[in-house]
Amino acid sequence: MTDLQDVVDSVYQDLASRIGEGKLADYIPELATVDPKQFGLALCTVDGQVHTSGDADTSFSIQSISKVFTLTLALGKIGDGLWKRVGREPSGNAFNSIVQLEQEKGKPRNPFINAGAIAVADVVLAGHLPKEAIGEIVQFIRYLADDETIAIDHDVARSETNTGYRNVALANFMRSFGNLNHPAEHVLGVYFHHCAIAMSCRQLAHAGLYLASAGRNPLSGGSVVSSGRARRINALMLMCGHYDGSGDFAYRVGLPGKSGVGGGILAIAPGKASIAAWSPGLNENGNSLLGSAALELLAQRTGWSVFGQ
Amino acid sequence: MTDLQDVVDSVYQDLASRIGEGKLADYIPELATVDPKQFGLALCTVDGQVHTSGDADTSFSIQSISKVFTLTLALGKIGDGLWKRVGREPSGNAFNSIVQLEQEKGKPRNPFINAGAIAVADVVLAGHLPKEAIGEIVQFIRYLADDETIAIDHDVARSETNTGYRNVALANFMRSFGNLNHPAEHVLGVYFHHCAIAMSCRQLAHAGLYLASAGRNPLSGGSVVSSGRARRINALMLMCGHYDGSGDFAYRVGLPGKSGVGGGILAIAPGKASIAAWSPGLNENGNSLLGSAALELLAQRTGWSVFGQ
Amino acid sequence: MTDLQDVVDSVYQDLASRIGEGKLADYIPELATVDPKQFGLALCTVDGQVHTSGDADTSFSIQSISKVFTLTLALGKIGDGLWKRVGREPSGNAFNSIVQLEQEKGKPRNPFINAGAIAVADVVLAGHLPKEAIGEIVQFIRYLADDETIAIDHDVARSETNTGYRNVALANFMRSFGNLNHPAEHVLGVYFHHCAIAMSCRQLAHAGLYLASAGRNPLSGGSVVSSGRARRINALMLMCGHYDGSGDFAYRVGLPGKSGVGGGILAIAPGKASIAAWSPGLNENGNSLLGSAALELLAQRTGWSVFGQ
Amino acid sequence: MTDLQDVVDSVYQDLASRIGEGKLADYIPELATVDPKQFGLALCTVDGQVHTSGDADTSFSIQSISKVFTLTLALGKIGDGLWKRVGREPSGNAFNSIVQLEQEKGKPRNPFINAGAIAVADVVLAGHLPKEAIGEIVQFIRYLADDETIAIDHDVARSETNTGYRNVALANFMRSFGNLNHPAEHVLGVYFHHCAIAMSCRQLAHAGLYLASAGRNPLSGGSVVSSGRARRINALMLMCGHYDGSGDFAYRVGLPGKSGVGGGILAIAPGKASIAAWSPGLNENGNSLLGSAALELLAQRTGWSVFGQ
Repeated sequence: MTDLQDVVDSVYQDLASRIGEGKLADYIPELATVDPKQFGLALCTVDGQVHTSGDADTSFSIQSISKVFTLTLALGKIGDGLWKRVGREPSGNAFNSIVQLEQEKGKPRNPFINAGAIAVADVVLAGHLPKEAIGEIVQFIRYLADDETIAIDHDVARSETNTGYRNVALANFMRSFGNLNHPAEHVLGVYFHHCAIAMSCRQLAHAGLYLASAGRNPLSGGSVVSSGRARRINALMLMCGHYDGSGDFAYRVGLPGKSGVGGGILAIAPGKASIAAWSPGLNENGNSLLGSAALELLAQRTGWSVFGQ
Repeated sequence: MTDLQDVVDSVYQDLASRIGEGKLADYIPELATVDPKQFGLALCTVDGQVHTSGDADTSFSIQSISKVFTLTLALGKIGDGLWKRVGREPSGNAFNSIVQLEQEKGKPRNPFINAGAIAVADVVLAGHLPKEAIGEIVQFIRYLADDETIAIDHDVARSETNTGYRNVALANFMRSFGNLNHPAEHVLGVYFHHCAIAMSCRQLAHAGLYLASAGRNPLSGGSVVSSGRARRINALMLMCGHYDGSGDFAYRVGLPGKSGVGGGILAIAPGKASIAAWSPGLNENGNSLLGSAALELLAQRTGWSVFGQ
Repeated sequence: MTDLQDVVDSVYQDLASRIGEGKLADYIPELATVDPKQFGLALCTVDGQVHTSGDADTSFSIQSISKVFTLTLALGKIGDGLWKRVGREPSGNAFNSIVQLEQEKGKPRNPFINAGAIAVADVVLAGHLPKEAIGEIVQFIRYLADDETIAIDHDVARSETNTGYRNVALANFMRSFGNLNHPAEHVLGVYFHHCAIAMSCRQLAHAGLYLASAGRNPLSGGSVVSSGRARRINALMLMCGHYDGSGDFAYRVGLPGKSGVGGGILAIAPGKASIAAWSPGLNENGNSLLGSAALELLAQRTGWSVFGQ
Repeated sequence: MTDLQDVVDSVYQDLASRIGEGKLADYIPELATVDPKQFGLALCTVDGQVHTSGDADTSFSIQSISKVFTLTLALGKIGDGLWKRVGREPSGNAFNSIVQLEQEKGKPRNPFINAGAIAVADVVLAGHLPKEAIGEIVQFIRYLADDETIAIDHDVARSETNTGYRNVALANFMRSFGNLNHPAEHVLGVYFHHCAIAMSCRQLAHAGLYLASAGRNPLSGGSVVSSGRARRINALMLMCGHYDGSGDFAYRVGLPGKSGVGGGILAIAPGKASIAAWSPGLNENGNSLLGSAALELLAQRTGWSVFGQ
């Protein structure tokens, strides 16, 4: 099957009967109110083709997918200095575990578990007020997606702020080890707001295209990062992008990807395409059940697995 | 640089001044006696070209690299049933840690940490005497490498048998959870012997070629595994092949790989080539220091990283 | 040696040459400024005799010793209901470890590790403003010591408030599991202030006398708790009163005791006496080095070990 | 109530209706075949009185209670040198956990968890054949109980030998850290056999009397250990004698004690008496359900809690 629109459509069709499966994230109250019967796909190729199916233009809370973009920003600010504060290894633990943080003296295992992303937010915050840092992140994502309408869902941000005790614990725990330079509430303000950014599959696939395309955005022509940095971010996504289900995603799908508890997944086929899948129901690892299944089918039908055809 | 022989030679030359760096494995007495000043590279392409440099024809103890081949055998025997007994996630711990095993009730995180490979050996042993199972593994590797001279180094096997208390602990611990079907000493007999197989870089690159080539051995023309299985083994190698340094290897090199404490590394560039690097000195994660550096350079110069050019 | 004043004096004399040994607590800045060359002892018998030696009338920060008094208050408020929220087992971990808290879903192991004492403060806070709860604790201790001059050292309280990130983490972590009913900053306000209460050895020995005397204060004649409750608080002190050095204290001294990082220790000889020792230098477990040594000698010379003569 | 025979009888009567409660140990097959409807009590005072009730003369498998006697022997052999190999702190973990052992590099937390008792057996074994060491332990216990009929239940010993994979793991794990001087199978031979010693409540209370009586056996007049050593063994029993239920036992009963999965408990009232309780059904911590309840009542009615009346 070589026509990509056909592939995207066939994946959607083959899974349409399962729409609504999985379990909504319930620890962020606002996310628990989302209609579970939604499913969207979008695919942007490195030569600028866009293919969508289903609810590809409905906005959803990107949650942890935003960590890919804040990591990109933080690397732009301090480069490899980031790795003094955050590791690059899979965690072997749940996304919000604090055990590892105690054993490794406040250094999070990687930038995609919560603690690591909070440290990344601390880097993005440097020299700014929280409001400015949040603004910078939103502007960066708008630039990547070439879409000025992308915005924060403030109900979601507020919902997290009120219930995110575990993240408050993680931030203060890191601070007790000297691995946080700003007050925890400022850093978490940045963190909760970038997690609350709302995007559609189309916008997300567009925004991630620089990772598929050696660091450049082929639609705008602009360079976002070096090809080496794009490659390394992809490596981090593959190793750590799905929490304690990262191995399973690599095994089944074979593409670098980053999921969010809002039900979205951004996957990268290096040299080929950026792909966004979304459906709110989650599997036992907290990753989109239908989104994972869609990417598995899509990788099979395109032969895009990085591990061979 | 497009001539692969030139690439292999240039990598060797650029690192030649560092030969001898790193630390020999010392917990297996026989390995501590190896001359550290050795360094070899071999690369087999999917169209059958072979390129070598340095000590590419010197045999060394493949140690944990053998786990790739026993995994292939065990999947051939019981297929996905294996995943009831062994997980597919990175461990986030040292290669011989027992902590994870207690927390997850005797199920090892993946087939490449010691506990997982012991469970795999238990599968290969089913219906056989230990001697027969060891023979089957050796025959399989000879077939893959098309070389009947490959053999076990019995001094190394004996060296491990006498000192491998930690592995005896792991095996009995799994058995206490019912995740070992044969007596621990039988399973460890198989395990210690397959780890003690000696191969050269040339033989190893040849033996791994099926993983680069959709499951078929292009030199002999035979099919070893399905293309899907080759892909999935590659995924496991990338996620878990370098113990607690897997993330770092993915970040720097970007190829599925499996290291052994004998100083060897087998790396796979899917659709391109199988590559073996060897130098006995290890880095702090227990992976070949020069071997890792060689593969990093080689991936850069060939553009073969699975994460993009 | 039967004259208790002679015992107290001899213990002081035998250790006087070591005054200044140990390491000041440095994680609370205000405590790091204390003169380390101080050493005091006070002993109150159940029949109302008081014996002191050295700096027995110098006030110091009682820190975690205050947890004995807040535990007594919390048990008075909700009785055995407390044990739904806090365990009664030794922790096998450092005093501020968060690992156990994750494994046991937010329930601290005992009321004397930081997390447990924070949960106890949450109980004392119920129905009050933080200021009122703090006032109640101070009044209770003044009543126990029969001394209205006992007060909070606000410099110390402020010093902890500014640096207590680890405790903020613990509190929020418990709150994420639903094991904290009030805002973390309110509970920690109570916690930091009761830890900052300043007392002399004389006052402390007097205040703890109810635990030696079946729950009654023999000096005032009043009943504080039932004899059964006094006995059980003593059991908790013996099992958990010295963090990860509790076993060592039981082995060497053989008396229920509670230490604080200010260098104080309150020890109870049931049916005999309440004893306070203080010297700011700490041993590797964070307990007063000279205080521990003094209590070991005193237990030997009086034969008061609960484990036999 | 001052007549001790009345106390013992009343405790038995008050619990008789609950005989059979609890769960038999099932991980040692031979123990799972014991009749659960048995309950015995025996109490020896330091002045040589013996009081019993119920099945006080029925032999049962003392299991971990034997660790008190092997600890006494090992201290006799190498004194405080033992504490280089074994700690003295509660474990905060299950009796057969291996996690702590990895974190603390092969040094068990205390001599009463399995790993610690295996290290103790290694000390007793020094200079002997396993058979001789076992013989020495049996002779020592016969001497303590003044009863030559005490013997090993070889069916139980065999039952453990065949299924004790977890203990094999612990022993080899310690050996991998250099904390075992003899082959694991020799040490475990000693360990499994001393755990399989069978004794009645009457014999056990008699054997433990030296701990209640300052190290001397008042019935025979002989000195077993110094008074200081008896005191310290009592401290260890209180802190660590009931695995992860030690805190609960101290809180409820308030006496040093050591339990075994055969349903027996030896408790010491220093200066007063040695007490043995036995009933095979266990509570959730693996300690005798009725035995614990009996000792709680007995401590209440005698006022013998070490924590006050």
